[in-house]
Amino acid sequence: MTSLAARVAREFGSPALVVDLDVVERNVARLQAACDGVGVANRPHVKTHKSPVLARIQVDAGAKGITCQKLGEAEVMAQAGIDDILISYNILGTDKVGRLGRLLAGTRVSVCADNATVVAGLPEAGAIAGRPLGVLVECDTGRERAGVTTPEEAVALARDIAGREGLSFEGLLLYAPEDRIAQTQAFLDEILAGLRAYGLVPRIVSTGGTPNLRNLGRIRGATEHRSGTSIFNDRMMMACGAAALEDCALHVVATVVSRAAPDRGILDSGSKTLTSDTGGGLDGFGLIREYPQARIARFAEEHGFLDLSSSPEKPAVGEVVRVVPNHVCVTVNMHDCYVAVRGEEIVGEIPVAARGRLA
Amino acid sequence: MTSLAARVAREFGSPALVVDLDVVERNVARLQAACDGVGVANRPHVKTHKSPVLARIQVDAGAKGITCQKLGEAEVMAQAGIDDILISYNILGTDKVGRLGRLLAGTRVSVCADNATVVAGLPEAGAIAGRPLGVLVECDTGRERAGVTTPEEAVALARDIAGREGLSFEGLLLYAPEDRIAQTQAFLDEILAGLRAYGLVPRIVSTGGTPNLRNLGRIRGATEHRSGTSIFNDRMMMACGAAALEDCALHVVATVVSRAAPDRGILDSGSKTLTSDTGGGLDGFGLIREYPQARIARFAEEHGFLDLSSSPEKPAVGEVVRVVPNHVCVTVNMHDCYVAVRGEEIVGEIPVAARGRLA
Repeated sequence: MTSLAARVAREFGSPALVVDLDVVERNVARLQAACDGVGVANRPHVKTHKSPVLARIQVDAGAKGITCQKLGEAEVMAQAGIDDILISYNILGTDKVGRLGRLLAGTRVSVCADNATVVAGLPEAGAIAGRPLGVLVECDTGRERAGVTTPEEAVALARDIAGREGLSFEGLLLYAPEDRIAQTQAFLDEILAGLRAYGLVPRIVSTGGTPNLRNLGRIRGATEHRSGTSIFNDRMMMACGAAALEDCALHVVATVVSRAAPDRGILDSGSKTLTSDTGGGLDGFGLIREYPQARIARFAEEHGFLDLSSSPEKPAVGEVVRVVPNHVCVTVNMHDCYVAVRGEEIVGEIPVAARGRLA
Repeated sequence: MTSLAARVAREFGSPALVVDLDVVERNVARLQAACDGVGVANRPHVKTHKSPVLARIQVDAGAKGITCQKLGEAEVMAQAGIDDILISYNILGTDKVGRLGRLLAGTRVSVCADNATVVAGLPEAGAIAGRPLGVLVECDTGRERAGVTTPEEAVALARDIAGREGLSFEGLLLYAPEDRIAQTQAFLDEILAGLRAYGLVPRIVSTGGTPNLRNLGRIRGATEHRSGTSIFNDRMMMACGAAALEDCALHVVATVVSRAAPDRGILDSGSKTLTSDTGGGLDGFGLIREYPQARIARFAEEHGFLDLSSSPEKPAVGEVVRVVPNHVCVTVNMHDCYVAVRGEEIVGEIPVAARGRLA
């Protein structure tokens, strides 16, 4: 019988982005159960899949709402009827604040901020919507990305938010390094004490990250969690122990197009298909399920360089394989459409509807 | 006066992909003059820009035709009236060969092949089109990507092509490492001698690469050249001496959204905007024109981590900057549209029409 991968390639072309909805549903249920188990609300991050169809599966399974990383993602989700959206990003500039206000007029939406410049621009969104915009203070407990770096700054920014017409202080956004839970707890406790002194209570304390699911329930005061990658999983999640191979719902179907020497070959999927994301230092650029010892050693834009020297079996030209990406979030972002399957059956197509949208 | 970058961000959002058509036209003219100067036809590679509008500028400046890396790119270009298309890739599978045949029916198109499996599938395209498909033999002289690795294989594959109804032997495709011109010449000479013994003459001997423009005219027998990146240039081209900063026609307009500590900040452009392509080992993920000593140290999906420790001036939250990408070809592929400018003036939008197309 022709393999699923070969049928996908024949019907939809190669390379193709394939999602197994059976595995998705298992992954979604597992995340929801983990959140339910510790009494933390589930607010999955849709930056991973960028699809209202998949967001709906998450909400129907019990998610309280969703997280977006860009305003454009939130607009697409809201238009599809997804409500209660947290945009975990500093929204800045009159154009974006205007869009945010129009979004807020019809959808429950909150944003985060880590500085006073951003906070000062946000009231206009509340004014446009005719109701206050909820704002969370983004806190950094060691990742050194965005986020205020001291509890004092967090409290000051919360007071700034609470004091502005058009805004309401909604809570705190955390994205703790996985090995800094104690420090994050101390940081959070200090903020909470500081806020109490001013009569401020966070409605939301949001934690984040699929690798941090192992810490779920370990931060006292956390009310909800943002997990993106767990809907699909990938080589990064396998490497950090957050998933097994059978939990990987997303593949790139790719074809071997050249075997110019005994120990090497070329896949028709390169950096424009899988991206050159190393997944934080993984060896190679993806896992070929049919040839797990073949190494995707490097990329040109449309060429995946296969090192077959350690692979006892070697694929022939024309063979179609499934690649587990290093990092699904960036891989999905390269594609306009998923081919949806259930096990060995092709069941349809799902647009990556929020891809390429304005920030 | 408000900077161009800030006006782009306000009118089109941030991040945005910006192309300066004045610089494009200079770059296109320079490439054409270089090819004309040594009597080699210019067949620019449109994988870089994926836009029929920009391909038309190249053809109007004197390009003989264009090069595509995917069938989907060629389909978009042909639909826009661009003729004489070389697809520098092994086309494989009945679906793709069928599309190729339908394309060939209305457009001059040739492909390359490096193995007998691919060659055996191609005659169907000629049969569909009702005229022979030109096929070039892809040769590898050291890059170890695709391509036959010996002159004997090249001659054998050329004979295979020439002997099949529905195909015509069109020539040879080279992509020599920049420092292997003598070896490439020897390889080519041996193929040409071998072909002569069978009465075969290549109509096309195609060389490739923007860095190889410094070798233009140095391979005897080459008839045309494929250069992609030179239309825009980037940090890779600056690093290898193929371009200067003023030759860079493409920028990502990005906004500083966080400055959580004195020596760091966050740009609203991460791996989903600029890609995690290191440009072959460049330091950092792009050059900020306004802050050349700021380092884009790493990426999250929508976060560019700025290390400002070596930058005497440091941007404030809300400041809009222009980033020269490490690698323009993969950066363009992330976007659906260019904002076109001429100097300080915004002149319109150009769709990245061939992005996201089927291979």
